[in-house]
Amino acid sequence: MVDRLLSPLTSLPPPTRRLRLGVVGGGRGSFIGPVHAAGARLSGRWEVVAGALSSDPEVARASGREWLLPEDRIYTSYREMAEREAQRPDGIDAVAITTPNASHYPISVAFLAKGIDVICDKPLTNNLDEALDLLKRTREAKLVFGVTYSYAGHAMVRQAREMVLSGEVGEVRQIHVEYLQDWALGRPDQFSKGAAWRIVKDSATPSFTTGDIGTHAHHLGCFVTGLKLEKLRADFHVCGDPKPLEDTVFLNTRHEGGIPGTIMISQAAAGTHCGLRFRIFGSKAGLDWIQETPEVLHFNKANAPAQTLIRGTGAGIGPSATRLVRMPRGHPEALHDAWANIYAEYAIAIEARRLGREVPAGLLSFPDIVDGVLGVKFVDAAVQSNRAGGTWVDCTLKV
Amino acid sequence: MVDRLLSPLTSLPPPTRRLRLGVVGGGRGSFIGPVHAAGARLSGRWEVVAGALSSDPEVARASGREWLLPEDRIYTSYREMAEREAQRPDGIDAVAITTPNASHYPISVAFLAKGIDVICDKPLTNNLDEALDLLKRTREAKLVFGVTYSYAGHAMVRQAREMVLSGEVGEVRQIHVEYLQDWALGRPDQFSKGAAWRIVKDSATPSFTTGDIGTHAHHLGCFVTGLKLEKLRADFHVCGDPKPLEDTVFLNTRHEGGIPGTIMISQAAAGTHCGLRFRIFGSKAGLDWIQETPEVLHFNKANAPAQTLIRGTGAGIGPSATRLVRMPRGHPEALHDAWANIYAEYAIAIEARRLGREVPAGLLSFPDIVDGVLGVKFVDAAVQSNRAGGTWVDCTLKV
Amino acid sequence: MVDRLLSPLTSLPPPTRRLRLGVVGGGRGSFIGPVHAAGARLSGRWEVVAGALSSDPEVARASGREWLLPEDRIYTSYREMAEREAQRPDGIDAVAITTPNASHYPISVAFLAKGIDVICDKPLTNNLDEALDLLKRTREAKLVFGVTYSYAGHAMVRQAREMVLSGEVGEVRQIHVEYLQDWALGRPDQFSKGAAWRIVKDSATPSFTTGDIGTHAHHLGCFVTGLKLEKLRADFHVCGDPKPLEDTVFLNTRHEGGIPGTIMISQAAAGTHCGLRFRIFGSKAGLDWIQETPEVLHFNKANAPAQTLIRGTGAGIGPSATRLVRMPRGHPEALHDAWANIYAEYAIAIEARRLGREVPAGLLSFPDIVDGVLGVKFVDAAVQSNRAGGTWVDCTLKV
Amino acid sequence: MVDRLLSPLTSLPPPTRRLRLGVVGGGRGSFIGPVHAAGARLSGRWEVVAGALSSDPEVARASGREWLLPEDRIYTSYREMAEREAQRPDGIDAVAITTPNASHYPISVAFLAKGIDVICDKPLTNNLDEALDLLKRTREAKLVFGVTYSYAGHAMVRQAREMVLSGEVGEVRQIHVEYLQDWALGRPDQFSKGAAWRIVKDSATPSFTTGDIGTHAHHLGCFVTGLKLEKLRADFHVCGDPKPLEDTVFLNTRHEGGIPGTIMISQAAAGTHCGLRFRIFGSKAGLDWIQETPEVLHFNKANAPAQTLIRGTGAGIGPSATRLVRMPRGHPEALHDAWANIYAEYAIAIEARRLGREVPAGLLSFPDIVDGVLGVKFVDAAVQSNRAGGTWVDCTLKV
Repeated sequence: MVDRLLSPLTSLPPPTRRLRLGVVGGGRGSFIGPVHAAGARLSGRWEVVAGALSSDPEVARASGREWLLPEDRIYTSYREMAEREAQRPDGIDAVAITTPNASHYPISVAFLAKGIDVICDKPLTNNLDEALDLLKRTREAKLVFGVTYSYAGHAMVRQAREMVLSGEVGEVRQIHVEYLQDWALGRPDQFSKGAAWRIVKDSATPSFTTGDIGTHAHHLGCFVTGLKLEKLRADFHVCGDPKPLEDTVFLNTRHEGGIPGTIMISQAAAGTHCGLRFRIFGSKAGLDWIQETPEVLHFNKANAPAQTLIRGTGAGIGPSATRLVRMPRGHPEALHDAWANIYAEYAIAIEARRLGREVPAGLLSFPDIVDGVLGVKFVDAAVQSNRAGGTWVDCTLKV
Repeated sequence: MVDRLLSPLTSLPPPTRRLRLGVVGGGRGSFIGPVHAAGARLSGRWEVVAGALSSDPEVARASGREWLLPEDRIYTSYREMAEREAQRPDGIDAVAITTPNASHYPISVAFLAKGIDVICDKPLTNNLDEALDLLKRTREAKLVFGVTYSYAGHAMVRQAREMVLSGEVGEVRQIHVEYLQDWALGRPDQFSKGAAWRIVKDSATPSFTTGDIGTHAHHLGCFVTGLKLEKLRADFHVCGDPKPLEDTVFLNTRHEGGIPGTIMISQAAAGTHCGLRFRIFGSKAGLDWIQETPEVLHFNKANAPAQTLIRGTGAGIGPSATRLVRMPRGHPEALHDAWANIYAEYAIAIEARRLGREVPAGLLSFPDIVDGVLGVKFVDAAVQSNRAGGTWVDCTLKV
Repeated sequence: MVDRLLSPLTSLPPPTRRLRLGVVGGGRGSFIGPVHAAGARLSGRWEVVAGALSSDPEVARASGREWLLPEDRIYTSYREMAEREAQRPDGIDAVAITTPNASHYPISVAFLAKGIDVICDKPLTNNLDEALDLLKRTREAKLVFGVTYSYAGHAMVRQAREMVLSGEVGEVRQIHVEYLQDWALGRPDQFSKGAAWRIVKDSATPSFTTGDIGTHAHHLGCFVTGLKLEKLRADFHVCGDPKPLEDTVFLNTRHEGGIPGTIMISQAAAGTHCGLRFRIFGSKAGLDWIQETPEVLHFNKANAPAQTLIRGTGAGIGPSATRLVRMPRGHPEALHDAWANIYAEYAIAIEARRLGREVPAGLLSFPDIVDGVLGVKFVDAAVQSNRAGGTWVDCTLKV
Repeated sequence: MVDRLLSPLTSLPPPTRRLRLGVVGGGRGSFIGPVHAAGARLSGRWEVVAGALSSDPEVARASGREWLLPEDRIYTSYREMAEREAQRPDGIDAVAITTPNASHYPISVAFLAKGIDVICDKPLTNNLDEALDLLKRTREAKLVFGVTYSYAGHAMVRQAREMVLSGEVGEVRQIHVEYLQDWALGRPDQFSKGAAWRIVKDSATPSFTTGDIGTHAHHLGCFVTGLKLEKLRADFHVCGDPKPLEDTVFLNTRHEGGIPGTIMISQAAAGTHCGLRFRIFGSKAGLDWIQETPEVLHFNKANAPAQTLIRGTGAGIGPSATRLVRMPRGHPEALHDAWANIYAEYAIAIEARRLGREVPAGLLSFPDIVDGVLGVKFVDAAVQSNRAGGTWVDCTLKV
């Protein structure tokens, strides 16, 4: 099974210019904003030309200069940026929203309203109503709305997906994802500014770690298998120092077809760094991928020597990974490259939209707003299940 | 914190002869019987002198000759062996019971009745009544009854336990154990003779994989942390080909003090071999040990370089592991060595008993019948929880 | 010991614009040209604005469009590019030379003559006379001339260097570097176009693999220890299919102070990919780094647990690696990031030059033309030693 | 290609008793004597019944009791042991010589003279004359003389050998072996008693590390490829604290057919433990085995996913490894198991000799005196080469 994206992609005419990206958020002290910008730049398909990098005007201006943005495109308000960029003949082609989660909704609304394509960090929103409303607005505006589940941009994640879909593991029988970090071991008042907003307990923030990194795990399990999550049970825990929301969650899962699995998430697992891993067990073989060594995909057949697939061309690598290869095998790519892959796909999707072409997105392609909405539903279901003592909660959604 | 076994051990007089071991089970086609014998032999503390190696008299005789047992100590019935060995002046000091689980109870009863110390494979029995009755008989007879949770014999498991107990990980906050194999992917009628009995569904066999390898995972999590399991919820699955009992079980756990964790068990996880692993996360550091590379213990402090502890003397290795060292660092020991360690400790316990000395056993020492009983309780609770749809079930027991 | 670069770097004023890079070579079928461009782009310090991407005018034009270069800055000759860019008010700040080795010299000469800073791939030239002449011209022109020993851009290579220089391994006692690939197993007529030029035997190409990847190994061993190579003996072999030049070379080495070591190089080591590794053994500890997992530095003290240092901030990471950190620990960086680091340092060096500041370069800083010259001397000495049957040959050079 | 041992082995009648082993050396403070005994015991083919465990009578007696030997078979002199055991009707079947190297010769002579089969540690002797004389005596006496190159007993080393001989790597093109330890970093006067004798400089001890562990590396490279070493050049170094003999040696090698390679040996490589590794590169694939993880053999084909072969049955494992399997895949075996394999083969060889059967030994089978002699020749050649400044020295020998 080749990547369903492959054929539409290759039939597009070659690009004649880089797309122009504006960024909201990402100023000094921010982690993820610069990653968006670096991924866009590395992709070769984008130039970063405008930014409202902070809600603090001073920081916005200083950061804009550090980013070497043109003076007249350093904004101190995203509303102003949406307004003025929409009027420029050389206005931005898309906006990257890299702010704390609570503001994803209003910022997205502002840019969608101006007809500007959106690329937003995850989780899409803090509640399902907002998420569904954004989906509705996106469809009405017929715009591209990407959600940066960036791990889905790794070539070897694509390779795993292709192998699952082509039946190389046999029938999928178990889906396990874990994501372990330790930066939230301490008290929230010890967190860096870039992290502290993630744990603020209010009605708009029903969870900490489930939304923050659990959504990555949820997406990855679905993305690799092509199977939606149908129901779950969740136990929330505070395993680090006291905090108002969970820093750890253990889930039992059932994907489409009743396939059982687990998700184990903690941001208070001492001595771990960014331990995202999926293990898919099928009737014939297993796949095992670990984010910290993203070049490697373990393909373990029953009754056969284990195989180690390494990113590159040939040597067992299929077309959906091959088309993402920049560096040859053994010359490692990593997280910036995954972001570049995602940003390249968003560029293609935007170009296709303008040419009136269909580019499939979502579960079997690159991550978009549908994945974003399903992620919010996942968090919602987990919060409900935990409150009810760990009962099974449905998390399907007609989208 | 040094191993509580250490001081009584060192104050015993040196042995003047090897102890004599009889073995029940272990004939042709058996997996675990020869492992018991090899571990006993490697320990240097035992000689194997008698056997009732099969319930089939032909096999028992042929196997006994293969084992180079003296002709007059090759038995075709364990009852006869118990009877005659008890009468010999050079009779066996202990019996190793390596038969299918359902027969552990009557065989144990027979040897305990003759005043012979018992070393029995796990799970101790198929039901709690039998397990508790064996405990009662053992105490009445004032005999040593070891249960071969053999992984507890690894030097680096002892090292992990010592580090947890001495506070090197801080407070224990999460306990995760997984045990993944794939030999039961197929249909039970495809299993080897040595494995087929494990999946026979009758009243005496309430579970397959939970008893078969889940008990190892349960014991290991408790052994390393010194914390009993208090409650669990369990989901049983058949992930391989259809079979009458579960080949996969996912558990949520709470150890003493409410410490949360998970146990993930499957014998139908394609491409895995003997994937037993524990991860203990504390307030300061984590420990990670994988059975397939038993020489290595990963000690991962928050905010510090990860440390790799390798079995040997010095270099961060404490007394409870040091006293088990046969080969120097880098000259690997493995599973036969773990068995040898366990058998050495049983020899010491038996010698101590004869000298009227107390040797602590159980959770903080080597595995004995109390651990065996708790393992049966664990299986019992898991079966109950699964039947009830995954509710929390208590698994404490006054022993 | 902090990186000697650190203080001058931080005292420079912040940049006010991206530097403009022109690229020679790198058209369709080229491997390394796009890597230069991607590294420059990812660094955030450069924009690629001009190119003479191929000596074939058709390919040069087509490739220039694929790179989205402005039409008037797509050149079909590097001489024309040097000429016209030197005249533009917005002309390139530096040229990246990514062509086959034999042309490095004339292209460098052309741009140096126009007062344009040069960044050239390795090996600098095919013979020592050209290399020394370039050094002379660079010094006369007072220009920056970087040589892209890109592995020196990895944060954990900097970390290793800092640890060696600060004495954490004790006195350096052994220096071992190996670099194993397998793409040259077959016959030269099977090589891709991008590789075939590397093996053409003529007076200008005295070696194949010693120049192609041996120079990386040579540089890395010197760079990490701060010790120049003083003498060597070399055995050249053809271990793959027949070819006119060596595809494998084994060297014995002595670095400054008589420190012994080995270099093992092969491009015909079946089943390897890009197996560059250094191991430094000191009187107290060893360091071990493997290019295919560049985030990890193994720090192995005698009589202590092995430490695994992971790129990031804190946790044992010193300032020379810390200043290169883009992504936090566990979010892996890789080869494009190493290139970005190198390109950032070249940007800084060029800005410093314009401000009249001294930026130390060479063995204890980022790789420049002195390293390039020493690399050519290394190849020269190896060729001589091999011809003489493996005698010791001096490879010191007054530069 | 199946192991040439396989057919003769299986046609022998089953054993009817364990063979009786006497041990010379191995008393308190000795490392390797207890390893011989444990390997013999674990094999199930031997019982240890007699010993002259030390040249110090007190130590010999105390150690004999610790080993639980019968009082009348605890000897204080190996001569007495040879004499008296030869006269007993139940005398030892073979002697294991585990003393410092200098005494291997006279002890071997004493037991060969009594018609007792010999199993001797490596290196066989400290000089070639003694080694050749032992070979002559062994052949005259028509006895079995094993030399315990114990790493050759690992199942996965056999697997590698079988794969090389059956052409799975194609033609052998490079042979690399390294063996790195760090216990000799310090001064000889800091060595333990069990190690100090290895570094005594006198006419009988021409080398330290080349003999001590270099011989293992030499044997392993030959054993796995079936190719004798033809010539070498050697550089000796003292990389640890000052000592009278080399603690480090780097060799260039040519095996039969002119196949090039390297051997890198150090006992002063800080932070290493017992880092023995071979890498064989062929025209189609490479094999990579590391002693510290002996269960794993990496089989790396060019242009194909890397394969990880794990000891066990099936899954790509051939008959020469399969016949050594005690524990199933994933239940790790290690160094005691390798010793047990070697001791089992010596038992078979002795039984075969008594039955008048031929059992091939040497390069393509288990290690015997011919391998021992070649090892001494290897040391001899290395010493000569180093003295001559690293010239090529022949190390072939008609045996």
